[in-house]
Amino acid sequence: MARVVQNPLAISLGDPAGIGPEVIAKCWDNRDSFGLPAFVAIGDPRSVAAVWDGPIEVVDDPRQADAAFDFGLPLIQLNTPDSDTPGHPSVSGAHTSLDSLEMAVGLARSGSASAVVTGPVAKEQLYAIGFAHPGQTEFVAERCGVSPQNVVMMLAGPSLRTIPLTTHLPLAEVPARLSIGLIEARGRAALRGLQRSFGIAEPRLAISALNPHAGEGGKLGREEIEIIEPAIAALAAEGWRVTGPHPADTMFHARARANYDAALCMYHDQALIPIKALHFEDAVNVTLGLPIVRTAPDHGTAFDIAGLDRADPRPMAAAIRMAAANAALRAEIA
Amino acid sequence: MARVVQNPLAISLGDPAGIGPEVIAKCWDNRDSFGLPAFVAIGDPRSVAAVWDGPIEVVDDPRQADAAFDFGLPLIQLNTPDSDTPGHPSVSGAHTSLDSLEMAVGLARSGSASAVVTGPVAKEQLYAIGFAHPGQTEFVAERCGVSPQNVVMMLAGPSLRTIPLTTHLPLAEVPARLSIGLIEARGRAALRGLQRSFGIAEPRLAISALNPHAGEGGKLGREEIEIIEPAIAALAAEGWRVTGPHPADTMFHARARANYDAALCMYHDQALIPIKALHFEDAVNVTLGLPIVRTAPDHGTAFDIAGLDRADPRPMAAAIRMAAANAALRAEIA
Repeated sequence: MARVVQNPLAISLGDPAGIGPEVIAKCWDNRDSFGLPAFVAIGDPRSVAAVWDGPIEVVDDPRQADAAFDFGLPLIQLNTPDSDTPGHPSVSGAHTSLDSLEMAVGLARSGSASAVVTGPVAKEQLYAIGFAHPGQTEFVAERCGVSPQNVVMMLAGPSLRTIPLTTHLPLAEVPARLSIGLIEARGRAALRGLQRSFGIAEPRLAISALNPHAGEGGKLGREEIEIIEPAIAALAAEGWRVTGPHPADTMFHARARANYDAALCMYHDQALIPIKALHFEDAVNVTLGLPIVRTAPDHGTAFDIAGLDRADPRPMAAAIRMAAANAALRAEIA
Repeated sequence: MARVVQNPLAISLGDPAGIGPEVIAKCWDNRDSFGLPAFVAIGDPRSVAAVWDGPIEVVDDPRQADAAFDFGLPLIQLNTPDSDTPGHPSVSGAHTSLDSLEMAVGLARSGSASAVVTGPVAKEQLYAIGFAHPGQTEFVAERCGVSPQNVVMMLAGPSLRTIPLTTHLPLAEVPARLSIGLIEARGRAALRGLQRSFGIAEPRLAISALNPHAGEGGKLGREEIEIIEPAIAALAAEGWRVTGPHPADTMFHARARANYDAALCMYHDQALIPIKALHFEDAVNVTLGLPIVRTAPDHGTAFDIAGLDRADPRPMAAAIRMAAANAALRAEIA
């Protein structure tokens, strides 16, 4: 299949007072050494100028970004009344970050951008202006007309991909939240996503146990027997290549990782501890199950270091590269 | 301080049908390249001969092992009626593994051995012959006259040491098991162990959170506020260098690991996922809080590969090296 020439990627700057503008500008600076395709940033140019001296090329349409990319950071300017100071989040900044996200998704939906990469936002600020989603992922799902239940957050690094089945809830509530149906639905979405966005024809999914030693036959918990094993059997009956429940401590070393394409984990830290221990600088947050490609760097706004020229652009660069690769695969398959 | 000449280490072979005999024999084979000091194995020589063609030097006393070490694997022979077939655990093998453990501990207690390294045992077999301890660690503690509550299991690799606060219980029971007192006791024992066995004068202990994002100020669970923070404050008030509660997903990458000497984790997988993801081949199980030095490789009997010459001796070699180093440090400090 011929490599399809793609439209540029749309990148939301995220919270203007966070490190989003800085890492995106640094990505443009290092576009050659990082191996980045053309992209267009969306947001307030003042938030970039406050932390970066490089050239900004204001454009109206992502398709102008290709030509502009050699001369400066292509940027679609949003109408924002106030400018923000790095490290000092505000209500106005929350509006800007939401508008930026909204436009980036719209451009990808319409096809003028080939994919969306989202910069980090401050949830507390967003909640203060009435944002009612748990995070950007659910917002993007809704804008794409997909139920949040059917999208999957995957953390992807060079040697490991993990998917948390449950995310932001107290650990004590995790066991009650597990169900055969949830594992099946997320497993299926993950497997389809590996086919569609990663081009793996017969993806292999490893499913973790909840309890130590996978429950030791019921002695250390019964969730493996009552919930996880039946879900695995159901997915296998559909023809998917699934294994487990695997004791979580022995599934993330190099030899074990070679046996699967992604690991479906029961809770937040079970999925995020190994990915961040192994791939802290280049783990990417990928949303599977959407009609568009969406990735994000796996870090937050880092207000404490915003404006200090200390932010590491490598996670954002990894997110841009993965978005471009996934969009190219989708274009080939389509 | 001069390096003290030490007596050899005593190594229990573990279950004779497991991979213990094979990995210990392979350690002797590779004693030079692995950098191993003199040691003596304790068990049934037939279990070694069944899986290894090398020379065995039967001795009566660990102190003969130094002279014998150049000529063969020094071994103290136990009286065992039956021999075992690799991969087929038996009641007789359980007795042998228990006798071997008992003698190894006795030799270290008396000072004729400088430390104990324990080979892997099969708990199910041990339970069948009336063994009433959760594992070898608790047995060793009892034989040393130390309450199991005051010993600490640490997993130690080249770039990370972790301590699980709770171990073999269902994940659902973990939150209720946490208490300020437990964190304080284990934290104190861990810090003293870092001083005594690892020679770190002012050890730094990082304490993990239980919930994702360390509970986000109570929104994702209150254990951080109600239990972990007060315990950290109490330890700090005693002058110890403790930090936390740290979100577990961001405490195990290289830069984070540089900030502490050991991580105290709330549950089994939280401690074992990162150590095995990073150091699967050379993580060592170290028991702190004992009057003797005791280490073990961090793997089980692996009956499925016993006798097939496939067992990796590197974890056992790492356990032997760490036992020797810790014993030398204790001798210097004493």
